[in-house]
Amino acid sequence: MTETFVVVGGDAAGMSAASKAKRDDPDLAVVVFEKGEWVSYGACGLPYYVKGEIQSLESLVSVTPEEFREQRGIDLRTGHEVVSIDPDERTVTAESESKTVVQSYDHLLLATGAEPVMPDIEGTEREGVYTLGSMSDGKELREYVARARDGESFSQPDRGPACQYLEDCTGPVGIVGGGYIGLEMAEALAEHEFEVHLFQRGERVLTQFSEQTSEKVATHLREQDVVVHLESDVRELAGDDGGGGRDGNGGGGGGRDGDGNGGGGGGRDGDGNGGGDGEDGTGEVDSVVTDDESVSVDMVLVGTGVTPRTALAEAAGIECGETGAIATDAYCETNVADVYAAGDCAEATHTVTGEPAYVPLALTANRHGRAVGQTVTGTPTDGGTIAGTAAVKTFDLEAARTGILDHDDARAAGFDPVTETVDAKSRAGYYPEGGTVTVTLCADRDSGRVLGASLVSEYGEGAVHRSHAIVGALEEDATVFDLENYDLAYAPPFNTTWDPVLVAAKVLSGTLRDA
Amino acid sequence: MTETFVVVGGDAAGMSAASKAKRDDPDLAVVVFEKGEWVSYGACGLPYYVKGEIQSLESLVSVTPEEFREQRGIDLRTGHEVVSIDPDERTVTAESESKTVVQSYDHLLLATGAEPVMPDIEGTEREGVYTLGSMSDGKELREYVARARDGESFSQPDRGPACQYLEDCTGPVGIVGGGYIGLEMAEALAEHEFEVHLFQRGERVLTQFSEQTSEKVATHLREQDVVVHLESDVRELAGDDGGGGRDGNGGGGGGRDGDGNGGGGGGRDGDGNGGGDGEDGTGEVDSVVTDDESVSVDMVLVGTGVTPRTALAEAAGIECGETGAIATDAYCETNVADVYAAGDCAEATHTVTGEPAYVPLALTANRHGRAVGQTVTGTPTDGGTIAGTAAVKTFDLEAARTGILDHDDARAAGFDPVTETVDAKSRAGYYPEGGTVTVTLCADRDSGRVLGASLVSEYGEGAVHRSHAIVGALEEDATVFDLENYDLAYAPPFNTTWDPVLVAAKVLSGTLRDA
Repeated sequence: MTETFVVVGGDAAGMSAASKAKRDDPDLAVVVFEKGEWVSYGACGLPYYVKGEIQSLESLVSVTPEEFREQRGIDLRTGHEVVSIDPDERTVTAESESKTVVQSYDHLLLATGAEPVMPDIEGTEREGVYTLGSMSDGKELREYVARARDGESFSQPDRGPACQYLEDCTGPVGIVGGGYIGLEMAEALAEHEFEVHLFQRGERVLTQFSEQTSEKVATHLREQDVVVHLESDVRELAGDDGGGGRDGNGGGGGGRDGDGNGGGGGGRDGDGNGGGDGEDGTGEVDSVVTDDESVSVDMVLVGTGVTPRTALAEAAGIECGETGAIATDAYCETNVADVYAAGDCAEATHTVTGEPAYVPLALTANRHGRAVGQTVTGTPTDGGTIAGTAAVKTFDLEAARTGILDHDDARAAGFDPVTETVDAKSRAGYYPEGGTVTVTLCADRDSGRVLGASLVSEYGEGAVHRSHAIVGALEEDATVFDLENYDLAYAPPFNTTWDPVLVAAKVLSGTLRDA
Repeated sequence: MTETFVVVGGDAAGMSAASKAKRDDPDLAVVVFEKGEWVSYGACGLPYYVKGEIQSLESLVSVTPEEFREQRGIDLRTGHEVVSIDPDERTVTAESESKTVVQSYDHLLLATGAEPVMPDIEGTEREGVYTLGSMSDGKELREYVARARDGESFSQPDRGPACQYLEDCTGPVGIVGGGYIGLEMAEALAEHEFEVHLFQRGERVLTQFSEQTSEKVATHLREQDVVVHLESDVRELAGDDGGGGRDGNGGGGGGRDGDGNGGGGGGRDGDGNGGGDGEDGTGEVDSVVTDDESVSVDMVLVGTGVTPRTALAEAAGIECGETGAIATDAYCETNVADVYAAGDCAEATHTVTGEPAYVPLALTANRHGRAVGQTVTGTPTDGGTIAGTAAVKTFDLEAARTGILDHDDARAAGFDPVTETVDAKSRAGYYPEGGTVTVTLCADRDSGRVLGASLVSEYGEGAVHRSHAIVGALEEDATVFDLENYDLAYAPPFNTTWDPVLVAAKVLSGTLRDA
């Protein structure tokens, strides 16, 4: 009898699993339920759509629903939300606009993804407050940009020396969060000549990267006229729906130092709930209020991370781990037999620590989805661990990070971390152009094992691809003494004789030897 | 009593060893004998000097003799040729213009390098025949270009659409050999609007790379108006010193098919020594004669590889290996105690085969020289193996190779090689610009162990830096199943979700699983 593989969620993990399973076993019935209308889309491309480098949302779709159905033989049901799972009966219940379906399964994959998490501040429901997680988010943001630019040609933003005089800019706009989305959107919006204010709660942007990377990126953002507000705890996204209250544009907001602390504002430790603004005001946002200041804005993009969608799983008794995401084994199987979880809703094992980790990124979703597709068709496949490797481009810089960089995290995993940072030339010193690759490398003092790295360079000078060498070392538990002897490719247009990665390894291994 | 470390040869390996030893043990006496006047220079940069991207030979020097002497405390004696070694007495004898020196040593490093090898054809001694191994070679070639361009500005070649109409070009010039030097010099000379003819004996250029890489490069060279002559066995560099003979511009040279085989020429199997040309003619070269044709040229660059300089070592009873280079152990020590060899004169152990190999490249010279510097100062250091990793840029392409690609070589080393090649996008499909990375990946059928790879892409699209991932896999004896799970950095400006390296690993692992 034909087996049935049911997939909940039609993006990277879900469609990778469905496609691989159907390819490996054409007799398998593969049913995918997707709540929305879009499947298999590259959410990572949304900032470039807003920027205007990509002209249609459709171009972010790698395979269309029709292609999945007609060419790949997958029973893809868009507009179907799975509302419950019955592991005993091995069924899922899905609702569409018109009906409710009960579908039995032999194997089930939960690929429900993640959604942007809103910080616990007031005003996030206001008009003019955006997130960027879904295709419709991207559409709305692009429409906002088009409106704000008032009919100016969208398709070919010609940035030139970028908003050189802030008074000439459109906006201003606020971005809350200095992670990938925040930085990519800072570029996209600046390209459209918005005055961009980036608010970051901590001391630095890109907190998952090294301090040196963060500093280089922040300096670059400022050179591009992005106003970077560090250690800036956003208290409220204030609006125009009456009342003074927290709105720093009104009476007395802002001021950590007391000078503006009268009125309805509030110090960092104040209750902050006084004043007269509607607390659930949904009028248009008009300012970002931090402990220190109030900044007028025309819109706000919130990019403060994502949270896994686990409600469906939890209701069915499927366990989540300490990270809050669905717990899985090396084969992406959950605590319930024949129920798998992969992608942005699931934990995975960290390459360096060997412990469960939650790092929702596209490659993991694809890789683990694909592995599940192989497993359910009879080839049990370990989808591999995650090193937390990530890359970002912002303006004219590129950066990558991998493994464990934070010393507290490293110590918690039983290591004694030592870190060195080097600035190295990206090409031979005599070769034209080129720039600087800053490499931060972290290793364990006793064993020398490479724990993690962070790299940043001018865009095109290879910080991201060079990180491939360090991922290789992490994956194989190599030491920094091994790494410094890697026979990496060299020619003058690509590096100095010692690639920046090797320079960092040399310096760090010297430190460890001398210790 | 102070120990003495003597180094023969003042380039990459020698000066790396001298510098590291002196830094690690300032009490050590370090004496370097260098035959010529230049030390520590980047011979890899010479093509860019000839091209005009680099304005002075001096800029290829990373550290000057004065800096070595005054800042690093090294007793550097340029213009001193070591003519003999007495291992029993532990002395070397060096001659300068004015005197002969006998220098005792406690540790000796031979870093005598390699020199261009001339193919066994007639006419290589003619005027107008160049090689590119030394600084003076570079100087001569650049002077040739300046003369040929007849006073046109050298410093800023503005190539434009490169020699679009061959009849307008300077030259023509011939390049014998389709390896790194040949391809880099093809770019350099085409930039100066020479009509460039590249002669390659075998079926393809870059024979150490994959066939697919070679094809892509050859196609690109032709698009740049380089005339690529494959399977073209150069028989003679003919000249203007009278006589007809082999000079295809004279009576009856050339023609494999017999139509021109009268006169003094000769078929492939003919003795070829007839005719009337002066066999040791040293007049100016004016044509490249192959079995098939005779091509008029104004100059010829011979780039057919290098041969290790071992005469000094052999005369002292220091053994060479099967490759012809000086045999060493993992610490670069020769069969004679306390005598080391490193760099282009020495063998090293191959990463994949574990056997001695001769791959004279800059990183190995630096790394092994540095390791010797550490070893002689009391920290025995394994300089690591060599994977044969190499990179080249030619015109608008970049390519890298590493490990074992040739199936005969792989079988000789006990493997059962399987190879796959993929074309993958260099950036997300929807991201602007970008190109194609062609990855050839070779693995062992039974174990899945990665054996080697060859990558090629447009310049700037990361073929070279992406090869870092595969070097990591080779260094750690990883399998293709490991490699396909590497958590490599991803973002739309840098790759598709699966980096081209991972795409290749997926395809190859699928092939191995199905086999």
